[in-house]
Amino acid sequence: MLSEAELDRICVVLVRARNPANIGAVARAMHDFGFTRLRIVNDFPVPFEAARSAVDASAVLARAESFATVADAVADSRLVVGTTAVGKRDVTHPVLTLAQAAPKIRAAVSGDAPVALLFGSEKTGLSNDEMSHCHWLLTIPMWEHDGLRHPSMNLGQAAAVCLYELVRSDETADLGIDATGVTAAAGDMERLRLLLAETLEATEYTRHHPANSDAAHLRRLVTRMGLEAADVPVWMGILRQVLWKLRRDEPGR
Amino acid sequence: MLSEAELDRICVVLVRARNPANIGAVARAMHDFGFTRLRIVNDFPVPFEAARSAVDASAVLARAESFATVADAVADSRLVVGTTAVGKRDVTHPVLTLAQAAPKIRAAVSGDAPVALLFGSEKTGLSNDEMSHCHWLLTIPMWEHDGLRHPSMNLGQAAAVCLYELVRSDETADLGIDATGVTAAAGDMERLRLLLAETLEATEYTRHHPANSDAAHLRRLVTRMGLEAADVPVWMGILRQVLWKLRRDEPGR
Repeated sequence: MLSEAELDRICVVLVRARNPANIGAVARAMHDFGFTRLRIVNDFPVPFEAARSAVDASAVLARAESFATVADAVADSRLVVGTTAVGKRDVTHPVLTLAQAAPKIRAAVSGDAPVALLFGSEKTGLSNDEMSHCHWLLTIPMWEHDGLRHPSMNLGQAAAVCLYELVRSDETADLGIDATGVTAAAGDMERLRLLLAETLEATEYTRHHPANSDAAHLRRLVTRMGLEAADVPVWMGILRQVLWKLRRDEPGR
Repeated sequence: MLSEAELDRICVVLVRARNPANIGAVARAMHDFGFTRLRIVNDFPVPFEAARSAVDASAVLARAESFATVADAVADSRLVVGTTAVGKRDVTHPVLTLAQAAPKIRAAVSGDAPVALLFGSEKTGLSNDEMSHCHWLLTIPMWEHDGLRHPSMNLGQAAAVCLYELVRSDETADLGIDATGVTAAAGDMERLRLLLAETLEATEYTRHHPANSDAAHLRRLVTRMGLEAADVPVWMGILRQVLWKLRRDEPGR
């Protein structure tokens, strides 16, 4: 994990972002992951007011700085990294995937070096001139549709993914949940849950323990059984038998 | 990496999403990362038309399915995973971080098990009843502001981060870029670049090789020097000396 001081050494620089909603979305993602330093490069006044409507982004936007040029915005940075959708243009820079790039950015900030992470405009990305300020580029690997790489992600989503990767920790803790062991379909489990509810009703368990008998409680109970697909009809057979017996023995019948 | 067949085994289920723009953003993120199966659970007609304006999401939205209940939407799934911002409510389920959850989801789909990944409404997330359909929950670790965990991410951004993690590959390839070795500030490098341009102009290099002399070319040239901070004044001193000598020897001076 990055410390607060390290997070503060990373500037997110938005170059020619046109849409205030996107600026707000980037600020919100920064807030979510603990980043604070937003810089905006635009040749027109930034519509901060519109962006400020973004939820939970106000602290980041209040500290945001405006610059007229990329050179000014990155002047104090010792590592300048551009984001790109590879394949858009002839790239003269080294290009790393986001997962390759993140450790290098973390190493830079842990070594006290201010880092600038540049995002280009929604439509065109970073221009060649803007990229020339960068030491190298990073790209978020995407699915290649019909052999063509997808041109670009939504700006707010791309920023969220990049910032997530920067603070991502590779926890190896295993909580002992065996995802692959759960093989009964949810629809079968739901049918089992309904039959269980019917049984509890018939036995008056529901009347005695109403708090344990609502749908959500019973569903969790059934889910925790971790049933194999073949076990579901067995359990349903057992419950049907119980119900049959209860109803047959009902007084007055 | 997940294969196309494995990607197709993962359903993204949006429960009570209110904002068509968010549905569109989720669809776009799915398209970006190669996912195709979107399911919507709502008790009102889904405003697909509005969502369809989202860039590059049309293929996903065209295949999207509507369901009246969560039970219907997950009926064919053998692993149902809910997303949550931990701390919102008493959680009775196991909660894994996204990085812990992704390998378990990949293991399930590689073992042929259909998986449903549930996202709750923008305002309230998944309700307890909706969560009761889930085998376990995943959470995107966020920065704790003032000791309070941030309540929730923007829906489109949360989906993008989750889907990114599912297809993320931990490439270890090192492209030989030494990020930490670049320690000169970008502002100093830019001053060096300007002085180099002046020198090339004075030597008529610029006139003879205009294609090599534009600002972007020279900036990349200087960036690739990988200068230590202390080297910058040395190089600037060299160039200033060249310029001084050139101007002193200028004919007619």
